[in-house]
Amino acid sequence: MINVALFGLGRIGQMHGENLFKHPKFKLKYIYDTNKLLAQKSANKFKATAISDYRLALKDKKIDVIFIASSTATHIKFIRESAIHKKTIFCEKPLDLDLNKIVSCKKYIKKFSPKIQIGFNRRYDPGHYYLKKSIDQKKIGVLQKIIITCRDPAPPSYAYLKTAGGIFKDMIIHDFDLIRFYLKNDPIQEVFATTSDLSEYYKLFKSVNDHELATVVLKSKNGVLCTINNARHCTYGHDQRVEVFGTKGMLISNNKRDNEVEFSSTSGTNSKTKLLNFFIERYKEAYYLQLHDLADLTTKNKKPRANFDDGHQALILAVAAAKSLKTKKIIKIS
Amino acid sequence: MINVALFGLGRIGQMHGENLFKHPKFKLKYIYDTNKLLAQKSANKFKATAISDYRLALKDKKIDVIFIASSTATHIKFIRESAIHKKTIFCEKPLDLDLNKIVSCKKYIKKFSPKIQIGFNRRYDPGHYYLKKSIDQKKIGVLQKIIITCRDPAPPSYAYLKTAGGIFKDMIIHDFDLIRFYLKNDPIQEVFATTSDLSEYYKLFKSVNDHELATVVLKSKNGVLCTINNARHCTYGHDQRVEVFGTKGMLISNNKRDNEVEFSSTSGTNSKTKLLNFFIERYKEAYYLQLHDLADLTTKNKKPRANFDDGHQALILAVAAAKSLKTKKIIKIS
Amino acid sequence: MINVALFGLGRIGQMHGENLFKHPKFKLKYIYDTNKLLAQKSANKFKATAISDYRLALKDKKIDVIFIASSTATHIKFIRESAIHKKTIFCEKPLDLDLNKIVSCKKYIKKFSPKIQIGFNRRYDPGHYYLKKSIDQKKIGVLQKIIITCRDPAPPSYAYLKTAGGIFKDMIIHDFDLIRFYLKNDPIQEVFATTSDLSEYYKLFKSVNDHELATVVLKSKNGVLCTINNARHCTYGHDQRVEVFGTKGMLISNNKRDNEVEFSSTSGTNSKTKLLNFFIERYKEAYYLQLHDLADLTTKNKKPRANFDDGHQALILAVAAAKSLKTKKIIKIS
Amino acid sequence: MINVALFGLGRIGQMHGENLFKHPKFKLKYIYDTNKLLAQKSANKFKATAISDYRLALKDKKIDVIFIASSTATHIKFIRESAIHKKTIFCEKPLDLDLNKIVSCKKYIKKFSPKIQIGFNRRYDPGHYYLKKSIDQKKIGVLQKIIITCRDPAPPSYAYLKTAGGIFKDMIIHDFDLIRFYLKNDPIQEVFATTSDLSEYYKLFKSVNDHELATVVLKSKNGVLCTINNARHCTYGHDQRVEVFGTKGMLISNNKRDNEVEFSSTSGTNSKTKLLNFFIERYKEAYYLQLHDLADLTTKNKKPRANFDDGHQALILAVAAAKSLKTKKIIKIS
Repeated sequence: MINVALFGLGRIGQMHGENLFKHPKFKLKYIYDTNKLLAQKSANKFKATAISDYRLALKDKKIDVIFIASSTATHIKFIRESAIHKKTIFCEKPLDLDLNKIVSCKKYIKKFSPKIQIGFNRRYDPGHYYLKKSIDQKKIGVLQKIIITCRDPAPPSYAYLKTAGGIFKDMIIHDFDLIRFYLKNDPIQEVFATTSDLSEYYKLFKSVNDHELATVVLKSKNGVLCTINNARHCTYGHDQRVEVFGTKGMLISNNKRDNEVEFSSTSGTNSKTKLLNFFIERYKEAYYLQLHDLADLTTKNKKPRANFDDGHQALILAVAAAKSLKTKKIIKIS
Repeated sequence: MINVALFGLGRIGQMHGENLFKHPKFKLKYIYDTNKLLAQKSANKFKATAISDYRLALKDKKIDVIFIASSTATHIKFIRESAIHKKTIFCEKPLDLDLNKIVSCKKYIKKFSPKIQIGFNRRYDPGHYYLKKSIDQKKIGVLQKIIITCRDPAPPSYAYLKTAGGIFKDMIIHDFDLIRFYLKNDPIQEVFATTSDLSEYYKLFKSVNDHELATVVLKSKNGVLCTINNARHCTYGHDQRVEVFGTKGMLISNNKRDNEVEFSSTSGTNSKTKLLNFFIERYKEAYYLQLHDLADLTTKNKKPRANFDDGHQALILAVAAAKSLKTKKIIKIS
Repeated sequence: MINVALFGLGRIGQMHGENLFKHPKFKLKYIYDTNKLLAQKSANKFKATAISDYRLALKDKKIDVIFIASSTATHIKFIRESAIHKKTIFCEKPLDLDLNKIVSCKKYIKKFSPKIQIGFNRRYDPGHYYLKKSIDQKKIGVLQKIIITCRDPAPPSYAYLKTAGGIFKDMIIHDFDLIRFYLKNDPIQEVFATTSDLSEYYKLFKSVNDHELATVVLKSKNGVLCTINNARHCTYGHDQRVEVFGTKGMLISNNKRDNEVEFSSTSGTNSKTKLLNFFIERYKEAYYLQLHDLADLTTKNKKPRANFDDGHQALILAVAAAKSLKTKKIIKIS
Repeated sequence: MINVALFGLGRIGQMHGENLFKHPKFKLKYIYDTNKLLAQKSANKFKATAISDYRLALKDKKIDVIFIASSTATHIKFIRESAIHKKTIFCEKPLDLDLNKIVSCKKYIKKFSPKIQIGFNRRYDPGHYYLKKSIDQKKIGVLQKIIITCRDPAPPSYAYLKTAGGIFKDMIIHDFDLIRFYLKNDPIQEVFATTSDLSEYYKLFKSVNDHELATVVLKSKNGVLCTINNARHCTYGHDQRVEVFGTKGMLISNNKRDNEVEFSSTSGTNSKTKLLNFFIERYKEAYYLQLHDLADLTTKNKKPRANFDDGHQALILAVAAAKSLKTKKIIKIS
């Protein structure tokens, strides 16, 4: 069994807690959150020990993995300290909102050669991953286009948006990463981004200097054209589609639903049930599957699908997109 | 140009009139209907001559084709007389409601070796015909099951039902024929039929000794199991699906729609527009395509997809189904 | 925690073992199988105790549930003894192959009023169950037709077939039960069944007096027409579809796949990945979900979706279908 | 009957000839092409008169409509002369490749107030038009995104490409127009375009200074974000999809096929037949339907869906896209 300390008990931290508890290879030992009551409650649920000083987990030699699901601002600090203590590290996305902090962390932890996995869950989604394998197997010939649709069912709260870092760093970072995953060794060289605000949420987004809708176009060194179509709201659920087009065909990873029922009546035919509502339901399987990689990283030092550098590179694209929006120019990535 | 005389101007006769008028190989010369006013109106529309005595068409040497779309009770009479006059004959389904009349007609017209095509339009539907070709090409290996769904959007009127001959001879005769088309040289040997009446239309059907719902199971000599699922009403349109299953795969000929639009909203996702409403819209293409065969039958004596014997055999199955329903037994076809 | 003793470690017993092990409400305490080595191996895996005398479990007061996944012939015996010992009972389908044994068991255990759940897993499939709820909510108006397609990916072994009881009692029993589930208080009154053997498996099935293909038609007291289309093999996976048709619409519970990917290339468009291969993958979720009912049955005496009588009634239909096949008659259920 | 003179007998001119010949409201009287033999052949086929001097048609008072399907370079000249002669004008897209010629033509013909329809056939496609109606009916609430996929099955010949004007003016002009159709009174204000060349066709496109792949992003005054994803080749047919997203839902106008057949086998399930191969098949219905508008324009002076100004505005967007590509900047439309 791999002993884990979980840091952070927000919505996503609680979900990770459940997965770690159910997973046959992990033993959840410590739970840390600044909200002590919440930490205790979760500790009871998962038969773990609540700690009020996270250093206890770092110092405990029996702890193999530090699982960082705390607020973004704390990620780099926890990574640095976990690296010092030779722990295997899992860190939720984004690594941080500040590229400089990431670069200096990268330099600092280099000497510890830490094993780090980043929580880019889309890489583990069975459909999206099937596309990755098919691209690598040349099933669609030469890859030419990647088109991602990502629409959240409803905008986040003002409180969340205030510190989230904006649509590029918070939401589209997943899509930047997925594009990098598919492109493999072919780096992005150009980024163009535009946004819009048209709905009743206009004021909410304006109040945090963020946006409701975005379209991003990226071009790789080889010439692959990538388009990301995002929206912060979507009446019909969490719309998550990926299309890849090549010289020999096209693959689409479509939306998922609770069941495969179709309804035909006077109001329409072949109507399907609603999409899975949000990321925790939609990527439920992916969140669980990425733990297998974490186990292999811990015990066999097997490279996970997403590492520290992937976290860094995705943020570089997010920063470039934000710059393109601000300057109304196409940004070159050197 | 092939000169045609059209007999009968009901809903289906008018549709045939339009198709013959548009078709580059046919010239609609005469139009005959007992309703003289209607005949004159259609004649004007299609630049043809209305006749009040159908024998004028038979006697006119320039007429190549007698196109019989009149009421079922007149079919055999018109076929006999057209055969005598050496005309190529197109006759709508069913040939007649009485097997004896068909058998004696068959004997009688034999000496004239008439060229006859029966209006089994489903054989010309691009989707249903694609299944036929695929079966013949062994695309699904050995054919094992045929499953037909046929649901009319709304029940016919009392007036229509009174003389239509019941659900087996009037409606399911199309499905009996389609099964025979797919089975080719493998004859049906057993027929089981059951019906039901569950909706508000109960009284309508009872008043004409007919039924709202039917299920028929047929077994061929080789052992192919065929199922027909019919209904006289269907809130979501004219449901027309055919499934064929074999040792190497399955083919489904699905429903057709006006367009390929899908709608996603709070009330469901991927909802498609309604099915084409009824047979004249649904089988529009098939009705037109069967004229190509009629042209080839007339000028090249090329065998059409459905001939007199097909009309006869389909009625034998309809009669057997009605007998199975009455006797509550499985009927053997010798 | 609910303490469970699992009897039987065939393919399905092992799957139940895994589910019980993972389920938060159950504690797998004893494992019994006539193969002692296998029992020990599974006991190690699930942290349970292997027993070579099943009576140990019955006598242990701490055991709440006897989970019967052993061979069909042992079901009734285990049910009787479990009832005597006041255990909550879960029993896999079919209850038995002999109606008389079921009837006498029913009489015998009556005095113990045992809590019994039968393993009709399809009742717990999210798609099939969605249809059940929709029928009850009158979403399709008056229920008129139920059409079930069930095709196994590949025929079972000779060894399995020899004792399985034939296609009606072994395989179609699930479909008989699902129809009863949807019909609720409207009993089946007529059964017609026909079978066929057309593929290379002909000899295998003949050797055990069983069949490769079957079609069954049932009619309920109210007049609902039900059709079951089965096959013992299917090149494209485990084909599992249910269609319900009513006066206001139609619902279809479609097949499930590993992912939602579509592929378009020169050889076709919108091609989806293969169906989930067999019942353990296809009904994975259903097998797990039915444990929630078992927990509620044990602790709250909440009626499960399928009870002893459901097991009994489904077998009555299977026996009637076999009789219809043999006598070539429509069988009335009194 | 409306008398028509058809100018130009390329692939598209011949198709228009057939449609005009079949259409009940039109009488094809003259056919003009610089290739006299071809003109004579088509004249025989459509029972028209071949003319070697197009002015004959202009001078004939009985001619109501000049139907311009000749090479792009001749469009403006024919429009000017037809306007002088008070003819109703149908002109294929694009109006011209040179904005200045269009502007000066516009000024010149103003005094004749000519009735002009432009051949933007996509506006008449039943699926794409259903989206237009639905947007206008607020079925998806406030329109927020338009995403068009347009992939031709195979690249045109070198000869065609040499004079076609490049991917924006020749191919994507349809998509620019469709976006304008959906946006109605909300003008495009920003255009960004990027292209790529990745396949074996690289040299072909380079030789004519054109491109294989393009992505264009446009933003309207209201803030609607529009994306166009194009390719000059597509192994699986003529991929033509339009998606519109709004505050209350999403509509997709999907691809069309020859039939609705799905095939399931060991190599995949629900595989559909190939897409209709190219624009003449794909937009067959649209090409015919736009003639209804031409008839109404001629006889009732009813505004067609696309007029001279629409042809002008679409070219402005094409020119802006080409400029964006060249300057690597976002182009503002004043």
